Amino acid sequence: MEVQIAVAKVNKYATSESGDTLEVVERPNGGLSVVLADGQTSGRGAKAISQLVVRKVIGLLAEGVRDGAAARAASDALFTDKQGKGICTLNIASVDLHSGTIVLTRNNPAPMFVCRGDVIDRIDSESIPLGTSRDVRPLISEIALEPGLIIVICTDGLTHAGTRRGTPMDIGETLQTVMEDENPSPQILADTLLAQAVRLDDERPVDDISILVLKVTSRTGDNVRRMTVRLPIEGQRKS
Amino acid sequence: MEVQIAVAKVNKYATSESGDTLEVVERPNGGLSVVLADGQTSGRGAKAISQLVVRKVIGLLAEGVRDGAAARAASDALFTDKQGKGICTLNIASVDLHSGTIVLTRNNPAPMFVCRGDVIDRIDSESIPLGTSRDVRPLISEIALEPGLIIVICTDGLTHAGTRRGTPMDIGETLQTVMEDENPSPQILADTLLAQAVRLDDERPVDDISILVLKVTSRTGDNVRRMTVRLPIEGQRKS
Repeated sequence: MEVQIAVAKVNKYATSESGDTLEVVERPNGGLSVVLADGQTSGRGAKAISQLVVRKVIGLLAEGVRDGAAARAASDALFTDKQGKGICTLNIASVDLHSGTIVLTRNNPAPMFVCRGDVIDRIDSESIPLGTSRDVRPLISEIALEPGLIIVICTDGLTHAGTRRGTPMDIGETLQTVMEDENPSPQILADTLLAQAVRLDDERPVDDISILVLKVTSRTGDNVRRMTVRLPIEGQRKS
Repeated sequence: MEVQIAVAKVNKYATSESGDTLEVVERPNGGLSVVLADGQTSGRGAKAISQLVVRKVIGLLAEGVRDGAAARAASDALFTDKQGKGICTLNIASVDLHSGTIVLTRNNPAPMFVCRGDVIDRIDSESIPLGTSRDVRPLISEIALEPGLIIVICTDGLTHAGTRRGTPMDIGETLQTVMEDENPSPQILADTLLAQAVRLDDERPVDDISILVLKVTSRTGDNVRRMTVRLPIEGQRKS
């Protein structure tokens, strides 16, 4: 098997800094974790909050702390620092090679999607962001690693796209359409969702949008880990 | 412009854990840094050392500490912890959007390569790993971001490939060959170097091998940041 992860991330229109922070860390007992946080409000303040949360979570995960405990610690740290005036959503997606599962930790009202074959499950049980009070608890799902599994996680820039002009984004429908193509790569899934959201926002994203897609494939290839990053240099807009 | 980064990474034959650690962090003033460390000896001890160094460096970079100072701090921390008995190479490649440059920090005897057009420069001035003594200083190069620039950084698993059977790897020559093709992607460059090294090691890498390639392109596309990660699940070997 192989786990493929893709991220597509764009800033709110006309801002140079995203309030969303996404980082990847190796797990000390094998596998890796992707950590995505969205500081509420936009610009520098939001960035500082989401960076604080991601740094805290990543530091704890690297020490072997469990995902749920890391989320709770980050919430307490944020609440202590900002006294409830800074709130931040958090998603952690961990590929845990020790247990052979994907562990999904969620403190984010935005839904996530779990797809197997033609079935798309929307996971939108009530979930509270970090920093809102003491003792905020994350929702945790654990899913066995198996070929065909696709997981989609996003910030609210995606779920709220198009609402301003009354044509809201339907993530499930867009996913369904892309998945009708044969075996889309996670990057195609992420890019298509992002393109649709930006279109619904009239090419001027109303909020920072981050999309994370994990896909488990049965590919039996080499044993090489690969990563690519593409960083557009500021000042160039879609032509 | 766009900066494209690619990584290819393989473990020493028959070991489940790499002594090499590579992580990417956002810089607080714009851009990102890739941090690559190789703990000397292999297996768990080496992994612990390279993780300690990468965590220290990433934590400092995220706080806005300059790359050279972060490298020196990591060296002092490692020396204090291991009393000179743990050593670790370090490379930091930072895309600094503030200064419009790539900053390369090196504490690694393995060379790095800077390519512009047909010219391949091998940078192999003497460089000492972290943890060897107090006050280890990194070598720092700063290169203006311009289309066509390619930088190749690696751990010594690449430079030493093939030496056991007397057919040593020639990185410069392999690079030259790939670059004769039209505009190879950084992933093609990294994959080709890795495949050549693994071949010279008779398909059983003698050491962990990590290769990092940065490429600056003039592409004028959208403003989307993208990342992909491919993680093979243990137990599957090259067929």
